[in-house]
Amino acid sequence: MHEGAANQPLRKVRVELGDRSYDVQIGAHASGLCGQVARARLGAACRKALVVVDDKLPASAFERVMGALRTEQIEASRFDAHASEHDKSLVALDRVLVELTRRRLERRDVVIALGGGVIGDLAGFAAAVYRRGIPFIQCPTTLLSMVDASVGGKTGVNIDLGGNGADLKKNMIGAFHQPIGVLADTLMLSSLDERHYRAGLAECVKHGMLGADFRDPMLLEWTRANRTAIVRRDVAVLAEFIERNVAIKARVVAGDEREESEGTGGRALLNLGHTFGHAIEALPGVRSVLADGTTLPGEIHHGEAVALGLRAACACAAALGTASADYAGKIGALLDTLALPVKAAGLPPTDVILERMSHDKKNVGGVTRLILPCGEARGTVVPSPAADAVRGAIETLRA
Amino acid sequence: MHEGAANQPLRKVRVELGDRSYDVQIGAHASGLCGQVARARLGAACRKALVVVDDKLPASAFERVMGALRTEQIEASRFDAHASEHDKSLVALDRVLVELTRRRLERRDVVIALGGGVIGDLAGFAAAVYRRGIPFIQCPTTLLSMVDASVGGKTGVNIDLGGNGADLKKNMIGAFHQPIGVLADTLMLSSLDERHYRAGLAECVKHGMLGADFRDPMLLEWTRANRTAIVRRDVAVLAEFIERNVAIKARVVAGDEREESEGTGGRALLNLGHTFGHAIEALPGVRSVLADGTTLPGEIHHGEAVALGLRAACACAAALGTASADYAGKIGALLDTLALPVKAAGLPPTDVILERMSHDKKNVGGVTRLILPCGEARGTVVPSPAADAVRGAIETLRA
Repeated sequence: MHEGAANQPLRKVRVELGDRSYDVQIGAHASGLCGQVARARLGAACRKALVVVDDKLPASAFERVMGALRTEQIEASRFDAHASEHDKSLVALDRVLVELTRRRLERRDVVIALGGGVIGDLAGFAAAVYRRGIPFIQCPTTLLSMVDASVGGKTGVNIDLGGNGADLKKNMIGAFHQPIGVLADTLMLSSLDERHYRAGLAECVKHGMLGADFRDPMLLEWTRANRTAIVRRDVAVLAEFIERNVAIKARVVAGDEREESEGTGGRALLNLGHTFGHAIEALPGVRSVLADGTTLPGEIHHGEAVALGLRAACACAAALGTASADYAGKIGALLDTLALPVKAAGLPPTDVILERMSHDKKNVGGVTRLILPCGEARGTVVPSPAADAVRGAIETLRA
Repeated sequence: MHEGAANQPLRKVRVELGDRSYDVQIGAHASGLCGQVARARLGAACRKALVVVDDKLPASAFERVMGALRTEQIEASRFDAHASEHDKSLVALDRVLVELTRRRLERRDVVIALGGGVIGDLAGFAAAVYRRGIPFIQCPTTLLSMVDASVGGKTGVNIDLGGNGADLKKNMIGAFHQPIGVLADTLMLSSLDERHYRAGLAECVKHGMLGADFRDPMLLEWTRANRTAIVRRDVAVLAEFIERNVAIKARVVAGDEREESEGTGGRALLNLGHTFGHAIEALPGVRSVLADGTTLPGEIHHGEAVALGLRAACACAAALGTASADYAGKIGALLDTLALPVKAAGLPPTDVILERMSHDKKNVGGVTRLILPCGEARGTVVPSPAADAVRGAIETLRA
C-alpha cells in the first residue's frame, strides 16, 4: 500500500435487501469503523464481540479492530482460526460455537470476521446458527473476500466425506445470513502476499465477464486498460476497482438474495467458472501451472481454480458457439497478464472431474448445468451442455 | 388408540407465514400423506427423501411413511437417530449431513423427520443448513412434538460445554426453518408410553394458560373439563385437543415468526415455564417426583421440566402479585390430575439454578426475564423479576 492512502475518503456501496440492507465501506482504515457500525445498527444492547481472526494476520490489523470496539465500550475477545479449506469444517464451527457459548454472547452482541473468505464463511455461519442467529460484521482482509465472499450473506463450511480431505465437498453446509456491515480496509491488502492477491483478481475478471448483465458493461475493458496499475496495487485505481467489483456483486445479490432464479440467471451467473473450478479445487496433488511453465507449490488456491474454470468455460463456450474463440483468447491473455495459471498439473482422469462436477450443489435433478460466456461481457445458463464440449474444456486445462 | 380412528376425517390447521405457509394435518394415517405433500409442494424435481427416524419407533410407523414415498416414486432412505437430548448434538448433525451428502440429495429433495421433538429439531436443522437449506416435512410421533415442536420452524441442537453432558446448553445452536408440512398422525400415539404421553400434556396446559392471549380463552377450562377423556386418550376428544393446541401455536408463530417481539409478548410468551424448566432439565441426577411421592426413574423429561416450570411460574406470579394464589392452586391441581410431577429430587443449590436461568438464550443484556401468568389464561413478560420471588419459586420445587 502506498503513502497517502489514509487521506482518501471511504467509498460506499449499498447492498439493497429491504430490512437486511447494509453498506460495504471501502478504503484505508475502514476496519476501524467496526465499533461504530455495531453501535449504530445494534444500539446499547450490544455489549460483547467475538473477533474470529485469521491466525496469520499481522497484530496491527487485529489491534485496529480491537481498538475500535473498545472505543464503543464493547467487550471483545479473540478467537484464532486457520484459514484453510480443510479447517473450514464442522469441527472448527463447533469450536467457535463453544467459545460464543462460554463468552455468553447474546442476541444483540456481534461476531466480527477478520480475515479472508474462509474466516468470513466460518464466522458468518457460526453467527447464523448461534442462538438461531446473531449479527455479524465482515472485515475482509484479502482482495478475493473484499470483492466476493464478504458481500451477499453466503456462509458455511465444507464437508469431508472421506475424513482425510481426499473427498472434500465445498460449502455443502451453510446458511444465508447477511452481515450488518462490510468493512473492506484496503490497508489490509499491504500484508497480502502476491499469490493471494493475484488469486483475487480471478473473481474480478469473472465480474468483468458479467458486466453487461449487471449494469457495468465497460468493467472488463476498464480492467484490461488498467491491468498494470492493478497488478502494482496502485491506490487510486484499486479503490475504484474494488468499488466497481463490489457493486456488481451487490446488484446480483439484491436481485436474487437466495439464488432462487433457477435456470434464468440471477445469482447463479456468479457461478461462471466455478463448476469447473470447484471440481479441481481441494484435490490433493493438483498444482497451478503458470504461462511461463512455473508450477506453484502447494494446494491450488480458490482464485486460481476460478481462473482455470474461466478458461475452461471459455473453451466450452467456443465449442458450443455461445462465445467466440477470439473472446476466449482475449480472456486468456488478460488472465496471463495477471499471472493467473493456464494449466493444472496432477489432474485426475477426466471422468473423475466430471463426476465431481455432477456433485456440484447448484445442480438440479442430477444434471450438470454450466454458466458460460455468451458474447462479450455476458453470461448464460446452459442447462445440459454437450458432454464432448465439457470433456474437451477439461482437457485444455491438463498440464 | 381406539377402533374407528381411521374413519375420522383429518383436521387441518393453517400456519400463515406468507410464502412459507403450510398446513398441519391431524388424524389417523396423516403420515401416509407425506409423499403427496412433497409432490404437491416440490413438483417433479423432488426425487429423493431421507427419513430421519427415531430408532425406537415401531417398524409399522416407518413403513407407512416409506410406502407413501414409494407411491410418489420418491427414492427414500433411512437414517436412524437416538431420541435423547445428549444425542441432539453437533456430532449427530454431522452424521445426518454426511448421509445427505452421500445420498446426494439436491435442493428440491426432502428430509422427513419421523419421531418426537429431538428428531424433528435435529432433522429440521440438518435440512436448514444442507446446501443452505432444503425442504423438510415434520411427522411428529409424540403428543409433545405434535402440539409444540413440530410447528413453527424452530430447529437446532444442544451444545455440550463440558463434553460429558454435565453442562448441556439446550438449543443453543439452530435455525428458523419452516417445514413444508406437518403430519400429526394420531395412530403414532398408540405406541407412546404413558410417561411420554403425560409429559406432552404439560405443553397443553401451558397453551391453556395463554389461551386468552391467542383467541381461545376457554381452552384451559375445556382441558380441565375433559381431563379424564384426555388421560384415557379418547379418540374424539384427542383430535379436538390437538387441533386447538396446534391452533394456539400456529397463531403465535404467525404473529412473530422469529421471536422478535422483545419484551412485549408474541412468541416469547410460549416460554412460560421454560426458563425454570430449562434450568433444571438435562441436569444429571435430577428426578421427577409425583404427588403420591413416587420418584420417576432416569432423566427428567422435557414436559416434566415444563410442568415443574409452570408450577414455579405460578408461585413466582403469586409472590409478585401478577396472578392469584388461587390460580396457582387451580393449575397445580390440574397438573396433579394429569400425573405430572410436583417436585424435583436431586436439585443443585438454588444459586446454580439461578445461574443456569441467567444463561437462557432468551435473555437480553444479562438480565433473567421471565414469562409469568397474569390473571386467568394470560401471560406477561416480567423483564426483571424480584430475586426473592424467583428464589422462593425455585424452593417450592425442591423435594
